[in-house]
Amino acid sequence: MVAKSELKFIRSLQQKKHRQRHGLFVAEGVKLVTELLDSALPLQAIYATDAGLFPGATTISERELEAVSSLVQPNKVLGVFHMPQPEPLHFSDWVLALDGVRDPGNLGTLIRLCDWFGIGQLLCSPDTVDAYNPKVLQATMGSIARVRLVYAPLPEALQGCGVPVYGASMEGGAVGAETLPAAGVLVMGSESHGLGPGVRDLLTATVSIPAYGKAESLNVATAAAILLYEVRRRGGGPTQR
Amino acid sequence: MVAKSELKFIRSLQQKKHRQRHGLFVAEGVKLVTELLDSALPLQAIYATDAGLFPGATTISERELEAVSSLVQPNKVLGVFHMPQPEPLHFSDWVLALDGVRDPGNLGTLIRLCDWFGIGQLLCSPDTVDAYNPKVLQATMGSIARVRLVYAPLPEALQGCGVPVYGASMEGGAVGAETLPAAGVLVMGSESHGLGPGVRDLLTATVSIPAYGKAESLNVATAAAILLYEVRRRGGGPTQR
Repeated sequence: MVAKSELKFIRSLQQKKHRQRHGLFVAEGVKLVTELLDSALPLQAIYATDAGLFPGATTISERELEAVSSLVQPNKVLGVFHMPQPEPLHFSDWVLALDGVRDPGNLGTLIRLCDWFGIGQLLCSPDTVDAYNPKVLQATMGSIARVRLVYAPLPEALQGCGVPVYGASMEGGAVGAETLPAAGVLVMGSESHGLGPGVRDLLTATVSIPAYGKAESLNVATAAAILLYEVRRRGGGPTQR
Repeated sequence: MVAKSELKFIRSLQQKKHRQRHGLFVAEGVKLVTELLDSALPLQAIYATDAGLFPGATTISERELEAVSSLVQPNKVLGVFHMPQPEPLHFSDWVLALDGVRDPGNLGTLIRLCDWFGIGQLLCSPDTVDAYNPKVLQATMGSIARVRLVYAPLPEALQGCGVPVYGASMEGGAVGAETLPAAGVLVMGSESHGLGPGVRDLLTATVSIPAYGKAESLNVATAAAILLYEVRRRGGGPTQR
């Protein structure tokens, strides 16, 4: 049995303000918790319905787990982890930057895409959804453990970065056309608002995805998938796995 | 005011069995309804909070609309449309085929992707989520009006189609490597189950997306985005817009 106060504390971490005050976040489910235990993130506490499956775990009943879980179907284990310490960005490889991406599912998918393409750093504008939001974490499928996130105003973070900054835009040059450098920044805006003016001023060039049909736009995650594929195919970076 | 029995009928169309019995589906919101009104799909009835905005609309109160809506925030208008008549597939251009894609948001995003890349035909296995599910419709952003869907067992529908059939697979050849034909079929499986054995037997080749990082897989919509981009870039089909 877990103390009421402890359960209350865990549940409070579903809110961003409490996560930020304590520097802690909650991960749930066997896959996500296992990936995070394998990462460098320090563990604060772990609770499992079968404590034997996770070393150091406190036993939590199914009912207690349901009471604190953000999942529709709680899955055996819940870990409280410390958020990583902020580190400065380095621009020796490609960096993905997001300007105001609000949808948790999209951010989770974008983190997973970064992990697939070996993009180790994701820069998020302050109005991008918090990556430790439970819905984002679930959508990352564990990739949150391998992609470093930095929340900062994009103009400040990218000013003087020393590499070309490409903005995804409906009016950009088709991505297949030009050569891409070995290192750079790709900025994606939200579907509804596009790129903010402070970001537009920083761009070296804009890129777009060739359209053949009549859809007005692409979802931000599917557009990023194509652009990151091109960044790796024609740009530079790690060797293919 | 709309009759109670009429409201009840509209609400019943949120369920697949009622949609299929009547051959009708419900579309909501200004954007989606406007796109469908511009399409060839026959309208059965239209209800709007401001009937002057949509010719032929019956006035519905905000309260009545909330009572029948599947949206968290109902948006002014609701249309009841006839489902399109089934037509046979033709294989003169690329066709996207889905094997057991269950997530409504993913199917909606895939329909939107087809529309972006001018893929006019989407073949879905019978266990793929119903495209007239309200969550799918919303995620299509109106593209449902321009992509023709066929639900049929994939082995039957693809047997003897006369064009190469490519399956997306983690073990496939990298998509950037080989030449793609002007017409073909691309089959995507679900993330959890991959391609079924009946489909595997039909494949001309498998294709995969080069991986550079450590993510185990990509979301089906982001994977399809990259593969359809390659199909149009290196295969054939309509001219770029």
